[in-house]
Amino acid sequence: MFAVEVRDHIMIAHSFKGALFGPAQALHGATFVIDAAFFAAQLDANGVVIDIGRAHEALKQVLEPLKYKNLDELPEFAGKNTTTEFLTQHIHEHLAAAAREGRLGRPGNELSSIRVLISESHVARAWYEAPVA
Amino acid sequence: MFAVEVRDHIMIAHSFKGALFGPAQALHGATFVIDAAFFAAQLDANGVVIDIGRAHEALKQVLEPLKYKNLDELPEFAGKNTTTEFLTQHIHEHLAAAAREGRLGRPGNELSSIRVLISESHVARAWYEAPVA
Amino acid sequence: MFAVEVRDHIMIAHSFKGALFGPAQALHGATFVIDAAFFAAQLDANGVVIDIGRAHEALKQVLEPLKYKNLDELPEFAGKNTTTEFLTQHIHEHLAAAAREGRLGRPGNELSSIRVLISESHVARAWYEAPVA
Amino acid sequence: MFAVEVRDHIMIAHSFKGALFGPAQALHGATFVIDAAFFAAQLDANGVVIDIGRAHEALKQVLEPLKYKNLDELPEFAGKNTTTEFLTQHIHEHLAAAAREGRLGRPGNELSSIRVLISESHVARAWYEAPVA
Amino acid sequence: MFAVEVRDHIMIAHSFKGALFGPAQALHGATFVIDAAFFAAQLDANGVVIDIGRAHEALKQVLEPLKYKNLDELPEFAGKNTTTEFLTQHIHEHLAAAAREGRLGRPGNELSSIRVLISESHVARAWYEAPVA
Amino acid sequence: MFAVEVRDHIMIAHSFKGALFGPAQALHGATFVIDAAFFAAQLDANGVVIDIGRAHEALKQVLEPLKYKNLDELPEFAGKNTTTEFLTQHIHEHLAAAAREGRLGRPGNELSSIRVLISESHVARAWYEAPVA
Repeated sequence: MFAVEVRDHIMIAHSFKGALFGPAQALHGATFVIDAAFFAAQLDANGVVIDIGRAHEALKQVLEPLKYKNLDELPEFAGKNTTTEFLTQHIHEHLAAAAREGRLGRPGNELSSIRVLISESHVARAWYEAPVA
Repeated sequence: MFAVEVRDHIMIAHSFKGALFGPAQALHGATFVIDAAFFAAQLDANGVVIDIGRAHEALKQVLEPLKYKNLDELPEFAGKNTTTEFLTQHIHEHLAAAAREGRLGRPGNELSSIRVLISESHVARAWYEAPVA
Repeated sequence: MFAVEVRDHIMIAHSFKGALFGPAQALHGATFVIDAAFFAAQLDANGVVIDIGRAHEALKQVLEPLKYKNLDELPEFAGKNTTTEFLTQHIHEHLAAAAREGRLGRPGNELSSIRVLISESHVARAWYEAPVA
Repeated sequence: MFAVEVRDHIMIAHSFKGALFGPAQALHGATFVIDAAFFAAQLDANGVVIDIGRAHEALKQVLEPLKYKNLDELPEFAGKNTTTEFLTQHIHEHLAAAAREGRLGRPGNELSSIRVLISESHVARAWYEAPVA
Repeated sequence: MFAVEVRDHIMIAHSFKGALFGPAQALHGATFVIDAAFFAAQLDANGVVIDIGRAHEALKQVLEPLKYKNLDELPEFAGKNTTTEFLTQHIHEHLAAAAREGRLGRPGNELSSIRVLISESHVARAWYEAPVA
Repeated sequence: MFAVEVRDHIMIAHSFKGALFGPAQALHGATFVIDAAFFAAQLDANGVVIDIGRAHEALKQVLEPLKYKNLDELPEFAGKNTTTEFLTQHIHEHLAAAAREGRLGRPGNELSSIRVLISESHVARAWYEAPVA
């Protein structure tokens, strides 16, 4: 299995609901450094999983609506805890849709899965890996 | 599959038995930077794999008996080569036990596996991944 | 010149005033990974700049009031842009005061300067270095 | 599953054929930092996946013919785009052959797979993972 | 003294003249990850050294003519060894000119110096620090 | 001012004397990742501070007697606390001597200073910078 991975980041505010979160129930924020990895069993005719420029662009587009935002105020996240794990899945869904729709420059069925890894500090990170289909 | 990963470290002394190890047969030491990743197919009601504070605490408790120790002198490691690989499994066993016993704040059967990764320098690391059950 | 440096982090929300900041004028947030370096011309009798445990503790105490906070709501920062640069100086002031008051376990006049470096992402950081006295 | 991973690097020139590559169609170059991971279900009698010194040496030998080269001029790569992905597979093939032939100090059938990960910058990397057999 | 630092990268080919360089006399290449740090004694009215967006943009513009190039073919580098050290100075000159001409959004005389650091691998880097004036 | 920096590492055992060190008074160990930076006001005729291969070799030679050792047993360190700070100075002395004796491939008086930085974990490091002369 081959993979190609690109990195970008966002800086957001949010708060969590639930005693579990302790002090993180207050409005705080995070820099999320995001690594998006695209998996394929075979390379394409150019010898790549997908074009790395396209990969960077696709990740950037998914992150654009989140940059410098208070996630608590985004309608699509209403009633949700925008945890690091939750966001890995959110980004995955958008990247997988881009893959299925051929927007990554390669037929979606030639990509097997996508992994989204978010580093929230030098001591903690989370990721989500799931099929494209 | 979701994962959440936390980092901690220990600074220990040890020696190895076996010609394979060359100069590392002498008493030497290491800083082991440990990343413990917890895997789950689904997020819990709070939107997390497990609480990250709990994850940090669980890892810290497993590492506590090893901190600033000469591993050659710990009875539980008698007759063992405490290689990086060996230690990944040792730490895994303790974390998996904590998971099974519900000490990570979530029913153990909701966590699928744990991966323990140890970086021993900027050019070498080892890991062990196995089911919680 | 000797230096010893320790690392910790905070996750905060804030917003900036001024057209210069573009989208960062909105409420957003950041993970700030902070490296505090303490400089001394000579090592002490133990062979250290200062005890590394004390250094970790001192940094932690300075960061405690900022952890999981919306900096816009802290009275001491009223009317200020809590930029990365601003925060390096804020943390420096508190650490320098701790040094001058001997709370780092060594007479303050034996420490020459302190540098506070904040990494706000994998592509941007800022620092402030100034004398202890 | 256990893994041990070692790191080395090469600095090469190359160019790509195909409109997909845009400006990278011109002769340019890269530092490739390579992490080679060796997987095994069980540790050997010494308590390791393979000797880490052997792993470093094996990777170094595979990289030797590529160091400080213009990959466009190497006969074995004629007509190929030596993309990061392509090179992960190239290195994998050589390491897997070394494993199968027992040149890693352990019977090849005791090693299950090898993953070769190449970091080409602080924002992009690729990897290939496949069985040894 | 305050500093703000931003990161970008280039992927280039080049060769060196001189027996000192051994195998690096052949045409090879490198990924250069570049950190440009801007120093100022005082923050401006916004509370920054310079706008970080401007800093990223300024570095990008200086690097643009070098991206995906064979440095041996650039007229401005004719007869020069484009070593890592040499390139730190080259980039510095262009950034210092931008600072002096007020293109960084702050009067040039309010910036004291610039440091350009290039990481060429995980085990080697070089830097150049000099006044803006 | 120009600088070139190279990285290597050692894995050692040692213990400390003094209540200040708490649990680190016991025999333990560390991986020390060492960055040695060489400073010069001018580049040489080849366009480098010193040959990077020579720099790597010089650092390796200084570290050789320490690799896989229990520092408590080395006669030259008798009665000393081999703290991270102490070791930065020890390595500096040897590298500065190499520089002064022309063993770095450039007259010693053309090198101004050397900085030795030791990372002992992902959250702590120390360094020593002093003139070559």
